[in-house]
Amino acid sequence: MQNIKLTLSYDGTDFNGWQTQPGYRTVQEVLETSIASVTGVRPHCNASGRTDAGVHARGQVVNFYTETRLSSDVLLRAINAHLPADVAVREAAEESQAFDANKDARLKLYRYVITDSAVRNPFVYRFATASRHPLDAAAMARASRCLLGRHDFHSFETEWPNRMTSIRTVNHLSVNRAGEYIWIDVEADGFLYNMVRAIAGTLMNVGRGYWPEEKVAEILNAEDRREAGPTAPPQGLFLVRVTY
Amino acid sequence: MQNIKLTLSYDGTDFNGWQTQPGYRTVQEVLETSIASVTGVRPHCNASGRTDAGVHARGQVVNFYTETRLSSDVLLRAINAHLPADVAVREAAEESQAFDANKDARLKLYRYVITDSAVRNPFVYRFATASRHPLDAAAMARASRCLLGRHDFHSFETEWPNRMTSIRTVNHLSVNRAGEYIWIDVEADGFLYNMVRAIAGTLMNVGRGYWPEEKVAEILNAEDRREAGPTAPPQGLFLVRVTY
Repeated sequence: MQNIKLTLSYDGTDFNGWQTQPGYRTVQEVLETSIASVTGVRPHCNASGRTDAGVHARGQVVNFYTETRLSSDVLLRAINAHLPADVAVREAAEESQAFDANKDARLKLYRYVITDSAVRNPFVYRFATASRHPLDAAAMARASRCLLGRHDFHSFETEWPNRMTSIRTVNHLSVNRAGEYIWIDVEADGFLYNMVRAIAGTLMNVGRGYWPEEKVAEILNAEDRREAGPTAPPQGLFLVRVTY
Repeated sequence: MQNIKLTLSYDGTDFNGWQTQPGYRTVQEVLETSIASVTGVRPHCNASGRTDAGVHARGQVVNFYTETRLSSDVLLRAINAHLPADVAVREAAEESQAFDANKDARLKLYRYVITDSAVRNPFVYRFATASRHPLDAAAMARASRCLLGRHDFHSFETEWPNRMTSIRTVNHLSVNRAGEYIWIDVEADGFLYNMVRAIAGTLMNVGRGYWPEEKVAEILNAEDRREAGPTAPPQGLFLVRVTY
């Protein structure tokens, strides 16, 4: 029995998220179907975490067990040959029997991409959230600093599913701009439901001058979701990297 | 009566080309519908030329006549508010009554984009043609030089619709690479049906070493479509600029 680790990229636009749901097109469904076409057996693919409908991945990690004797290089090419154009396996490697892509994840890096171009760009609507207002990325970067470190992020959590604790440690948070694109990178030891999208919606309110920079620390301390900004839409969000 | 010139970008993936056809989603159809929502009257939009299903535009130009008194700036914003995410008006300007986006076009610049990445990239499948073989862009550039200037391009023409003459003047042709992307730029005083895609298919045969560089001049001189390479797929093709 091999335990295979796959690193995946996908354009989440036309998927109803990662997890298999009867009647919907999901990444798990097309991946397991493609692997079954190669190995003859449909595996269970265990992901580092779910991604929601419309959310993309550059480095989603999954593992599955298989009795095939095909090498990981051959598996990579064969699975890619069966996958549709909007999903690709970037890497495949044999791991130890104990490796668990979900439970062993130590850090995840998400990126939220925004464009504040005055003219709509029809080539990026799938991959960036359009802001109707010009954004001050430097103000967003300053405002975000209070989120670094270990905090109760209850203000940035959609309360489904309920969790034992909302305390997480953010070890990297940056806001950068290049041309008409702004991106927010957040790396943490775990994420609450919709946490990056709530942080993005909050920082966008600061960036357009609707809220002062100091407001973000007040929101964090309030531990109340109603204080934060809206959950920003899914198309700007990418799961970039999972560290084990 | 105003004669309005629009410059459009569109992601052609989900359109059945430019021209209105009953029962199909076309760029002309959604544009004329959006203008009608703004002005109350459905205009006829006259494009610099048709683009085929799946072909994109960064600078398609159209003109239409309207009795509205709205300024071109207001029209630009109002039409964009009605257009779907995969089309955008980049510029709007009032032109002289005689301006004809089709007949007055002096030059058109098309770009054909190819990726020869060893790993499939699910974020660009709409906008670049994937080559399974690594390509030698420098060889493609050398091979393409014989196409510059005034020639009979019958070997690079799908013979529909029939034309009076297949003689065209190419005033710019370049092949460049950046990372895993190769792009072919062709500017000419006019294009035959599928001409850029036939040139791209031919140069890709050279780039992967299947044909020697000298073969392109032989194909041109043969004036026979069967000599050239395949018509490359539409998703790599962009109408970049029309010069008047």
